[in-house]
Amino acid sequence: MGQYRTHVFVCTSGDTCPAQGEVEQFVKTLRAEALRANLKTEVRINKAGCFSQCGHGPMIVVYPDDVWYAGVQEADLKEIVESHILGGKPVERLVYNPGVKGPNKTPDAH
Amino acid sequence: MGQYRTHVFVCTSGDTCPAQGEVEQFVKTLRAEALRANLKTEVRINKAGCFSQCGHGPMIVVYPDDVWYAGVQEADLKEIVESHILGGKPVERLVYNPGVKGPNKTPDAH
Repeated sequence: MGQYRTHVFVCTSGDTCPAQGEVEQFVKTLRAEALRANLKTEVRINKAGCFSQCGHGPMIVVYPDDVWYAGVQEADLKEIVESHILGGKPVERLVYNPGVKGPNKTPDAH
Repeated sequence: MGQYRTHVFVCTSGDTCPAQGEVEQFVKTLRAEALRANLKTEVRINKAGCFSQCGHGPMIVVYPDDVWYAGVQEADLKEIVESHILGGKPVERLVYNPGVKGPNKTPDAH
């Protein structure tokens, strides 16, 4: 029933979330990457509010995969698009592990 | 890997989307219903931007279920929470069928 293969939401508020200008840039970059990959109709990028995961921002969530990213920086966006959205392989070093403060640098293999 | 059992996004812009005040009310109502159902930590409600499905708003999308609702009215919200979010049964009369203009009043059985 979904309208998009991949629907990406960027958080826009919270203590560690990006400032409004940065969010705009995140969205712009993600959309440009999706466009460049010819995924404009398959992928949608939206801003959203606070995800209530304070201390882990800037955060991005990719649905319907339900993959969460924490501590995302502008330089990571291209990799998220290429590896995850295009390639289907989440960027493990950025995947949010709620038991760990900050991005999960050493993903649990279990 | 997800942080919520159910993550609901309410569209906030577009020709037929609700005005800002209505969106605030939608979010407030959905959050109150989730709270009332003791689902505060399991369900997250967020505003998002335009879903690029012009003419079908107000829209709500429920992830990771990937169920889309079109033409949602305030009076429908309680039913969406009770039937879908609590009961796992989407409200078929509101489910968005992209081939149909407006909400899908007579869901296709196929």
